[in-house]
Amino acid sequence: MCEANAYLERDGNEELILENVDIIEPENGQVFIRNIFGEQKVVNSRIKRISLIDHKIILEKIN
Amino acid sequence: MCEANAYLERDGNEELILENVDIIEPENGQVFIRNIFGEQKVVNSRIKRISLIDHKIILEKIN
Repeated sequence: MCEANAYLERDGNEELILENVDIIEPENGQVFIRNIFGEQKVVNSRIKRISLIDHKIILEKIN
Repeated sequence: MCEANAYLERDGNEELILENVDIIEPENGQVFIRNIFGEQKVVNSRIKRISLIDHKIILEKIN
């Protein structure tokens, strides 16, 4: 499967916040993510980097 | 494989700009994308929506 895991970078650490993410939508200083099970989160952050090969979405807090 | 294709939305149409994208990095009103063959582009745009299941990255022009 081609979903990715979403991590929030905080103080140099990556905290796993949602697995098996399908949808990613940045909007107004927030990032909406939804996984294949319908779980969703809105995170006060911006997208730092996504690597689809690594199945990794890195979000970072906006200062 | 789990890459996605990147499209730029313009006037309601989606124009394919890069296939087999691995890396996505938004920065300062631009989006950097790189595919598995090392081809890369910097697009004056923002990420509108990514669906990993659909293998689709939609960028939109910033007005």
